This record gives sequence, structure tokens and C-alpha cells, in this order.
Amino acid sequence: MRLSHIIRAQQFNRDILAEVFSTAKEMEKIVKQGGSDILQRKIMATVFYEPSTRTRLSFESAMRKLGGEVITTENAREFSSAAKGEALEDTVRIVDSYADVIVLRHYESGAAERAASVSIVPIINAGDGPGQHPTQSLLDLYTVEKEIGHLVGLAIAMVGDLANGRTVRSLCYLLAKYNDVKIYFVAPEVVKMKEDIKDYLREHNVSFAEESDLKAVAPKVDVIYQTRIQKERFGDRTEDYEKARGQYIIDKSILDIMRKDAIIMHPLPRVDEIRPEVDADPRAAYFRQAKNGLYIRMALLKMVLLG
Amino acid sequence: MRLSHIIRAQQFNRDILAEVFSTAKEMEKIVKQGGSDILQRKIMATVFYEPSTRTRLSFESAMRKLGGEVITTENAREFSSAAKGEALEDTVRIVDSYADVIVLRHYESGAAERAASVSIVPIINAGDGPGQHPTQSLLDLYTVEKEIGHLVGLAIAMVGDLANGRTVRSLCYLLAKYNDVKIYFVAPEVVKMKEDIKDYLREHNVSFAEESDLKAVAPKVDVIYQTRIQKERFGDRTEDYEKARGQYIIDKSILDIMRKDAIIMHPLPRVDEIRPEVDADPRAAYFRQAKNGLYIRMALLKMVLLG
Amino acid sequence: MRLSHIIRAQQFNRDILAEVFSTAKEMEKIVKQGGSDILQRKIMATVFYEPSTRTRLSFESAMRKLGGEVITTENAREFSSAAKGEALEDTVRIVDSYADVIVLRHYESGAAERAASVSIVPIINAGDGPGQHPTQSLLDLYTVEKEIGHLVGLAIAMVGDLANGRTVRSLCYLLAKYNDVKIYFVAPEVVKMKEDIKDYLREHNVSFAEESDLKAVAPKVDVIYQTRIQKERFGDRTEDYEKARGQYIIDKSILDIMRKDAIIMHPLPRVDEIRPEVDADPRAAYFRQAKNGLYIRMALLKMVLLG
Repeated sequence: MRLSHIIRAQQFNRDILAEVFSTAKEMEKIVKQGGSDILQRKIMATVFYEPSTRTRLSFESAMRKLGGEVITTENAREFSSAAKGEALEDTVRIVDSYADVIVLRHYESGAAERAASVSIVPIINAGDGPGQHPTQSLLDLYTVEKEIGHLVGLAIAMVGDLANGRTVRSLCYLLAKYNDVKIYFVAPEVVKMKEDIKDYLREHNVSFAEESDLKAVAPKVDVIYQTRIQKERFGDRTEDYEKARGQYIIDKSILDIMRKDAIIMHPLPRVDEIRPEVDADPRAAYFRQAKNGLYIRMALLKMVLLG
Repeated sequence: MRLSHIIRAQQFNRDILAEVFSTAKEMEKIVKQGGSDILQRKIMATVFYEPSTRTRLSFESAMRKLGGEVITTENAREFSSAAKGEALEDTVRIVDSYADVIVLRHYESGAAERAASVSIVPIINAGDGPGQHPTQSLLDLYTVEKEIGHLVGLAIAMVGDLANGRTVRSLCYLLAKYNDVKIYFVAPEVVKMKEDIKDYLREHNVSFAEESDLKAVAPKVDVIYQTRIQKERFGDRTEDYEKARGQYIIDKSILDIMRKDAIIMHPLPRVDEIRPEVDADPRAAYFRQAKNGLYIRMALLKMVLLG
Repeated sequence: MRLSHIIRAQQFNRDILAEVFSTAKEMEKIVKQGGSDILQRKIMATVFYEPSTRTRLSFESAMRKLGGEVITTENAREFSSAAKGEALEDTVRIVDSYADVIVLRHYESGAAERAASVSIVPIINAGDGPGQHPTQSLLDLYTVEKEIGHLVGLAIAMVGDLANGRTVRSLCYLLAKYNDVKIYFVAPEVVKMKEDIKDYLREHNVSFAEESDLKAVAPKVDVIYQTRIQKERFGDRTEDYEKARGQYIIDKSILDIMRKDAIIMHPLPRVDEIRPEVDADPRAAYFRQAKNGLYIRMALLKMVLLG
């Protein structure tokens, strides 16, 4: 099955998701064996109009571990011809002759789709503004499947900034593909999950509930997906930020009431919404989750470049 | 024939140009075959004191496609020891032990020559301020030769910002090496071609004319070389900028009167001086021109590193 | 002998230093032969929270010359999740799954040690603020040993900004491991060597003297280690800076009174504290010293990655 462009979480059906995940499992083996040469002589261009060192390094490590080469810019907005008024489409038409795959991060929603409309090589969306970040969504889902063992019948609490959190929004779209999922939204009043996602879940018969008491929800779920209250989204509404921040914290008291086989996830970076005391607990899955990003990105690179 | 440093367009005679172009043709084949290993274990350092993402990525892709390695900085001005007062010559004396070839971009005219005076490895000038950008000139000439089939007897219109446009100025130097070339300069009053170039053409018996009506010139030429009115060169003279901009636009009406075998070139980025409606016409050569930059840079890297 | 993390100059004893230096000599041979593949499929991450193009390029060239791969960021402070409040430890826990070794530069003293406390791969400290820069110290010591032929019995003058100069401070720690060393400190009043180092030397029975007349010291020593008066350390005390700067200059008059077999070292960049007229003298060792950084870094990478 050949993937061409990877633009949004919703483009994947359950069959392709299964294929991505089984390829990611292969990739774990390849990493353990010290890498591979299957992408030898292939070139990946990371074109980032908005810096994101971690995502970029993750893609670049993935490409290297498969024997491929990388050309890269993290300053495309400031340094490239974009500053002179060039259209993204023109830039893509040029870079697609330098590379076999373009990993694009952009500050505008829809940018990846525009790039894909002109590119002769696959585009992988590494985040386009408030829009999509599909490789993050895939690694999240992969982590749940790998750690919990199933997606059908999953119970998950999404906690924190649900209004602005791109990861939890995308995860809702993906979870809607599986039966008997139950989602608990636990968010401060000012950053509650938005109506569009709730409508989507209703249409797809996904059961969800909005809860205010994390302690009531914690014992019931397979996964607590904690997110950071994003200060940068509040502008000068510092009062709102302070109100939201610190309302839902994962600490030892939450660990004590969680199931033994449940896990805690977080897209990282975290600030203080998960206390350091939690890190040593085997249920703290967030660093394993980050590592899964490497396997997922290796799998996607293999799939778009070799089919 | 071994090239050492590549500093300015004028350093090439017709024999070397022919050698560069035939090597570039080889490189097209190598790219089609998926790359080569001839520069294995060679290291190219891209040292950019002035950012230029496209030029940098083009060189880096060229090096990768020949199996070579890259070390890179796009922030040499801000981040390197230049900020502490180090002379360029000292920097070069150090970097030349890290790499087998140095690709230098600098904000000062003459910088590449100063670097070459101390470097023990080849220097390739990737643009030194208002000075030279020889690889751009070579890819321009290569594009004309490849698309039109000959340089002797060429008729070309250079359009737009001819006063500040480094590319059209350099192209004049190169075209002066070929017989029976006819150049039409079509520029807004405030950015007309400067006297030094016109003197050079007169000395070398190159026929040229200054024209104000693009529609009169378009049907007569093999090549229309359009350029961007560079806003950044006008400072606060916004009125002059607005007057110049938009005076000469390539659109369907120009396509309609051009010869069927003529081409449109542009160094890119473009803003609106070539309308998007032109892109689909086979005579729109500017994206092919950009791609030729890859082959020319591969050819030059091969020639300076392997002789 | 397997090195794990490389954090500070003092961690090395004379046996390990001898091993590093003999490995560095091997590396010189490997470079002359055009490189090696011993680090094939290994990935080095250069994570720089404070830019230092030269140090970064030196590490990256070292890794490439041994066949290894590189992923890199020079803007970790501004661009990474550090800006969102992420702890260094969290960043390291993620990057250590992307790479086999992390080269860290940071603006805070002690950062490398904090990174090492959580990393599952070796950390190499490439400078942590006013703290340590051990690879620079090792290349300095290696240069002395290689150029002079011995460390026991060495006579060395340290000149310039001894208060802020990280290199001379670290070199004192290392020289204290060898017998019969004699150090002359020659510094402007405002940037004299600090008491902590002098105490350390007294405790370790290293003979030192504070001198004000460079001309009196120059004829007596094997090595003059000149340093730059660092303008950036003076803040708005421009008067102090101007007083300090220019007090001790290496020029032809110093060359004339130095021993024939002595050398001049400098960590670079220099501004005007060594005159260009000195560069051509065979005793000017500073560019050779910079080149030794490549061999030392290759040696360390080999030792931490292959043991």
C-alpha cells in the first residue's frame, strides 16, 4: 500500500493505521539492530517555517536510522524567499527537485495541502499552525495500542487545555474509528473542548462526558492524556491563564487511585502539570510515547519512499 | 581540467564553460539514476554569513546526490566569531581543516576572493553581497544553451530591475564571450542598466538596445529574462518602488506574441511580475532553470574536488 | 578503557589523558588517509543552547570523518521547548532516543552534569556557560605535548584575560597533574587570575608567578598562551575594557625575544592581540592548535562510542 502525502489525521482508515503500526513495530527491531540502509541515497528536506527542534530532530533521526540523507532549514520564514513575497507553492516547486520527500512545518493552517497540490515528491505535514500534526496523532494512537493492547473499548481521560490542544483534538478524530471508546474531557472552564469535536463524536456515536473532578475520573480509565496549559495562547489574559494552570495536576495522589495497568501520556513539553515524582512510575508513558514518534516517522518515511 | 576556486562569472572562458556544461549533462543522468558515490568521504562546509536557504539547500542536495557529506551554518554573521571581531581570513583558516570544499556566502563584495587567498581547500562563491554569484550565472547560461540550443546569435530581453539585479549583470559578462548576441534592456526608468555594463558590452562589440515597450521586444527574442523589482533596494523611496513595480509583467498577452520556441526565465523568487497563468505554458522555463542549478552545482563540486 | 560522559577537564587522570592523546594521533593518520567508517550508523546530536559555530562544525566534521551521522540544532534556547518552560532533563530524555551521543552546549554552569544524570547515551560537554569546556582543554594540552614534546617541566606564560578566560583556567587544572610545571600569569590589573585557581595550584605544589612585564617573561617559556580581552564580559565598563585591551600584544618584538623552539598558542578568535605579522612564523601554533581540536574530538567520539 503506497502512501503519497501525509496531510491530516483523518486521511487514515483502520487498514492503513494497522499497516503503519505494523511497520512501526518493524522499525523498533531495526533500531535495536543498529539501523538499516533501505533509504540509502534518498534525501529528505525538512522545511520548517516555524521552528520545532524536537519534531525536526525526530524526523532527521528517523531518516538517518534508515540510511537516508537530510537537508534542512528551521528558519524558512525569516531566511527564505518567503520574506521576499514568494508563494509557498513556488518554494515547493523548487525544493521538490532537491529532495525525495519534503517534511513541512508551517504557521498557516492548510499549508501542507497547498504544498501537496504542486509537489512531485511526497509532503509530510509536520504541523501546519492551528491545523494538523498527523505524525503526532499517529504516535499517540500507536502508544495507546502498544501500551494498552487494544483501541476498541478504550476509556481515556483528556486533561488540560482541550480548546487549543491540537493533539487531543486529532486523537478524537482517530479514536472515532474504533468501537466502544469512552472519552472523558477534564478541562478548566476557559479551555473546554470545542463544539466541533463534540459534534463530530456525536455523529460518530462516540460516547463522551465532560467532567470537572479528575479524581473521580482517574480510577475509571486506561489512559490519562495530560496536556500543558499553553501560556502563549492566552495573550495578555494572564488572569485566565493563572486560573487554568494548576487546576489539574498529575502527582502521587493521582497515581494512587489509577488502575495498575493504566498509563499517563503527554505530548511534551510539560511544565509542572505532571510532577517529577511521577516519572519513575512504570505507568508514566510519556517518554516512551516520545520515542514511539521515532518509529512512526521511520515507518511513514519507509511507506512514502518505498511503498 | 582542474578548477580551484570559483569566485566570479568572468573567470570562465568558453572552453571551461563547455566543460562545466558537459559535466552538468552527466549530472542530469546521475540524478535520474538515483545518485552516485563519487564524492564519498568528501565534506562540504556551507558557511553563510547571509542566509539564503534556497542556494544553501541546492548546494547541499548537490553534494548529497554525489555521496558527499555536509556541515553547515546559515548564521555565521550572528553566531560565529565574526561577532567577536574575528577576520574572515582567520575563520577560513580554521574551517579549511574541517572540510574539503567551502561554499561561502557573505554580505561583502570581495569576500570570496579574500577567503580564497588563504584557504587550502577550494572556495565556491555562493554570492558576496552586491558582488558576484557565479553559480547562478552559470545555471542561467546553461539553461539558455540547453533550452535554445545555441548561445551564438542569441537574442535576449532582460526585463525589470536591471540596476540592482546581480543575475542580469553577470549574464551580460558571460554572453559577451559569444558572437552575434543581441541584448534588449527593458527597465523602468529608476532601475535602468548601469553604464559599467553598457561600456563592457560596447568594448566587447555586443549589440544591445534600451527599449521601453516590452510588447515590441517580446516577438523578437529567444529569451525573456524577467527579474523582480527588489523592494528591499528602494529603502523608503516607496513611491519609486511603486512606479517601477508592475510596469513590466509577463502574462497571457505576452505569451500570445512570443515565438513558439522562445522561453521565459526568472532567477526566482518572483512576486507578481510573472502571472501564475504563465506557469503551465511549456515556454515557462523558470522552474526548469532552478533545477539546472542542482546540476551545475553538482558539476562544479565534482570538478573542484576530483578535477 | 571506556569513557562515558565528558563533563569537565578535571575528570581525566594522566593515564586517560595519555590514551586520549594516542587515539588523537591515530586520528591524524585516519584524516590523512581520507577518513574512516568506524562510526558508521552512529548518530551524534549537537544540541547547542548557545550558538558556537566553530565548536559545532569541529564536532560535526569529526563525526563525519569517522563515518557517523549528525543531527543538529544551534538554536535550542530560542526554538526548542526550553522556551515553553521545559526542563533540560526532559529534553535530554527525549533526544537520547534519537542519537548515540549528545554534544551539549549550554549557557548555565553545571548543565552538562545535569544532562548526564538522566541520559542513557554519553554526553559531551561542549561548554556550559562560565563552567567547563573540556574538549578545548584537551586540545590545548595535546597541542603543548605535541609541539613541545613534554608536559613535565613545562614553562608557560598565560597572557590576557585570565579572570574570565575559561581556557586558561582549565589548562591550570590539567597542568597540575604534571611535575615541575612553571606558570607565569601576565594579565591587566582588572582581569587577573582569580584566587580559586591560585589556591588550587598551591595545593598541588605547582609553581606560579604573577608578572606584569611580558618582555621579561617571553624569553623564559616554552609556550605563550595568549587570550583575547573579552569585551562582552565588561558590560558598560568601557574604560576598564580599553585599559585592559592592547596592554599585552604579541608582535614581531615578542617573536624576536622568544626561544626558537617555543610556541604561541591562542584559543581563537583573536582580534588584535596577536598581530597578523606573527602568523607566518613557524612558532605561531594557533591554527595548528585549532586543527588539533578535530583530532581530539574524533578521539573522544571514538572512545565514548566504541570504548
